[in-house]
Amino acid sequence: MNPSSLAFWGASNNAMKMGTIQLTNVLETGFEGAVYPIHPSEETVLGLPAFKSVLDVGKPIDLAQLTLPTDVVPQVLEDCGKAGIRSVIIISGGFKEAPGDKGKQLERDILEIARKYDMHFLGPNCVGIFNSLRTFNSTTIPRPPMGGKIAFASQSGAYTAMINPYLRANGIKMCQTISVGNEADIDLADCLEYLVDEPEVNAIGLYVETVRRPREFIRAANAAVKKKPVVAVYVGGGEAGSRSSLSHTGALSGPDQVYDGLFEQAGVIRANDMDEMFDFLWALSLAPLPSGRRMAVISNSGGPGTSLAYHLEKAGMSVPLFSEELVQQLKAVTGRLAYVGNPIDLTFEMDLFLFKKLVELVFESGEVDGALLYGIFGWQDFMVNLEKRFPDIKKMQGAWEDAYFDFLDKMVAIPKEYGLPLFVMSFMGASSPSISPLIDGGVPAFQSASRAARAMKAMCDYREIREGK
Amino acid sequence: MNPSSLAFWGASNNAMKMGTIQLTNVLETGFEGAVYPIHPSEETVLGLPAFKSVLDVGKPIDLAQLTLPTDVVPQVLEDCGKAGIRSVIIISGGFKEAPGDKGKQLERDILEIARKYDMHFLGPNCVGIFNSLRTFNSTTIPRPPMGGKIAFASQSGAYTAMINPYLRANGIKMCQTISVGNEADIDLADCLEYLVDEPEVNAIGLYVETVRRPREFIRAANAAVKKKPVVAVYVGGGEAGSRSSLSHTGALSGPDQVYDGLFEQAGVIRANDMDEMFDFLWALSLAPLPSGRRMAVISNSGGPGTSLAYHLEKAGMSVPLFSEELVQQLKAVTGRLAYVGNPIDLTFEMDLFLFKKLVELVFESGEVDGALLYGIFGWQDFMVNLEKRFPDIKKMQGAWEDAYFDFLDKMVAIPKEYGLPLFVMSFMGASSPSISPLIDGGVPAFQSASRAARAMKAMCDYREIREGK
Repeated sequence: MNPSSLAFWGASNNAMKMGTIQLTNVLETGFEGAVYPIHPSEETVLGLPAFKSVLDVGKPIDLAQLTLPTDVVPQVLEDCGKAGIRSVIIISGGFKEAPGDKGKQLERDILEIARKYDMHFLGPNCVGIFNSLRTFNSTTIPRPPMGGKIAFASQSGAYTAMINPYLRANGIKMCQTISVGNEADIDLADCLEYLVDEPEVNAIGLYVETVRRPREFIRAANAAVKKKPVVAVYVGGGEAGSRSSLSHTGALSGPDQVYDGLFEQAGVIRANDMDEMFDFLWALSLAPLPSGRRMAVISNSGGPGTSLAYHLEKAGMSVPLFSEELVQQLKAVTGRLAYVGNPIDLTFEMDLFLFKKLVELVFESGEVDGALLYGIFGWQDFMVNLEKRFPDIKKMQGAWEDAYFDFLDKMVAIPKEYGLPLFVMSFMGASSPSISPLIDGGVPAFQSASRAARAMKAMCDYREIREGK
Repeated sequence: MNPSSLAFWGASNNAMKMGTIQLTNVLETGFEGAVYPIHPSEETVLGLPAFKSVLDVGKPIDLAQLTLPTDVVPQVLEDCGKAGIRSVIIISGGFKEAPGDKGKQLERDILEIARKYDMHFLGPNCVGIFNSLRTFNSTTIPRPPMGGKIAFASQSGAYTAMINPYLRANGIKMCQTISVGNEADIDLADCLEYLVDEPEVNAIGLYVETVRRPREFIRAANAAVKKKPVVAVYVGGGEAGSRSSLSHTGALSGPDQVYDGLFEQAGVIRANDMDEMFDFLWALSLAPLPSGRRMAVISNSGGPGTSLAYHLEKAGMSVPLFSEELVQQLKAVTGRLAYVGNPIDLTFEMDLFLFKKLVELVFESGEVDGALLYGIFGWQDFMVNLEKRFPDIKKMQGAWEDAYFDFLDKMVAIPKEYGLPLFVMSFMGASSPSISPLIDGGVPAFQSASRAARAMKAMCDYREIREGK
């Protein structure tokens, strides 16, 4: 994950080759180590001197990446061993996952070669890794959403690579991804063992079609979840799903309930699908954990408030009635039409700073373990017609903007101050300038009540897992 | 929903008043009927001559909108009655939903006034309507995502209005929304009765915290679903949810199971939350219905293919093995590493037109009732680094673009030709230029396997509801 130098097979000066695309991404993403392209005929590759054989390089090589036709992989892996390389990424497919016996034999062959030279390798049949902590990206994807504190290890290459536009649009960043492919050598249990000690990673996601070494997986996960949450998507169960999984990574899957049991033993939180997994990881990587399952709901609108309360209760949390003392404190700051039970419904309310006061009051009370808020959406989208009729509106925008961003600054400080999670529900989307400062400040914003509630449940679940409950 | 003229209370020349914002939106959205602002002191409002009383207008008035303080609503409603107005929208809150008895009495009062003059009204405590079929928008929201064939009636005003940025970002358009507020007079059953005969509406959504007249609701829904699907979100169940609902629209909600039974009797499909409801409505409004529950999954990547198969089976559909004959036909067109069971996994495959061939083969076979496809994402996002090193890439973009859009054109023709639904799963997002032509052509694109599968289930469910199964 942190190579000091790289030997690369499969890149040329033909832009339409997968290896060329990957090596271009290594160089353009800003890798700082030495790069040695290996090519049988080219003198230079992407402007770098190319070598006929890795044995000609004559310098220590930390990592090799092989983006080659299946048949030549064993010989090149031998060369890697002879050159003293210990870590290899094998992108090439056509091994265990391919129809027929030949691929399975080839996979056994490369494993044997790796053992002989004391090498470890990722893949085959994977899309590689990226690591924003040390700016390394050897995937086919030019601009992964680097940053953040989420790491992701996956038995699907597509999910580590093609999901990037989704993550970008939703304001979610990843610092490390590992595509494990067929897991002939390195598997998800190894990834967990590695990621537990990465200090900048604080939440780990897994896409799972099979767990090849259940005992080691449980052991590694149990150690990991003492320090950071692990969330997994499992889609191997079911008839067609298992057929597909077998052809995909040569993985034998099992029924849902077996994996539910395995994840429970491992302390791993199961998510329904990729979108939910990233909701969970996002919340877990950004916000403080709730100390229990009592939630406050604050909104300026009945529908979203009712929806948040419903989905929180459905997910096993409570939205308790406030004490008479707290109700009086809330009434003292809200308007005549407001309902100050839990949920709090301000009805139509323009004073944003009231939200701040309400969140502080409910956090201060000790009566809840977290809060969910609906009612933040900025103003820009709502002024376009008004501006045409009232030109003065434009002049006021500067002052509004200052007040709005000042409000957001103060809101994101509250969860830190009280050590309690605050989630926002907003239809504006994470990439809206009205919302992104919340996310940058550690307050996740979800576009539906059920997603916010499910993510809060994952926070509660992890709290209990970590405490061994 | 289709006023020829409008009398409006509550707009002035103060841009910061809700009524001013709404009337500005009426005018800027392009309403073609006559508009009569009623104001006690202003000579003109937003450039239009204002009237002291509606009785001074002296012309027939089709619709009145009242955005006024609670206390003056009864007197103004009386005036409306005297002026011969039959349809009224009452935006004002402070009625049945407000704490105390006064609001409840006021709501009885306005209902009595309406009965006296044979008027019907929407609200109180609502945000109004928009109708893109006749370009009328009197909500506070300047740019609703108008168009499409979805209508939405809601007991939450926020969900008809503030959800627009979400819908826009997801490529979803609505042609009519109705915020019913407290439903003192017009309720959801009335909305269903109206919408069933709107020829340009082909899918109806409801946000429900209570059903006030269950018998009439079931009767109206039964009639509606013979012609078009009805999808409802219900969030009244649960303890805090019902509390919130009561304070929101004065609605008494009931346990989830009661409403499940009611919806089943009504033929209404229940969605979990707003995002899911719009997924369902989107699919139902765009794509042909499947003739059964047998689905083909086609992908160029194992993870998404396995996920689609898993979520389809989990949602009660089947992903059946293909016949030997079909397998041979598929093998004849795919590459060596492809798996042509169901799911079909092409592995890494650049030839887009192969997707077209495969969808045609599986539809032609009669072995499936619909298909879900992963593997369409355009190319623009993946070339940014390559373009820096290979300037010729830019020159090829034109030809690629032509081929890509030609491919999308041909893909959207297939569901129409076979009368079977094709759903795409893609992480690119509906607003990406690589995906939007699919949507414009009637092929919905979902950003996760579970969302695509759940929406396909709603399609199957509606088919069976319509056929009375």
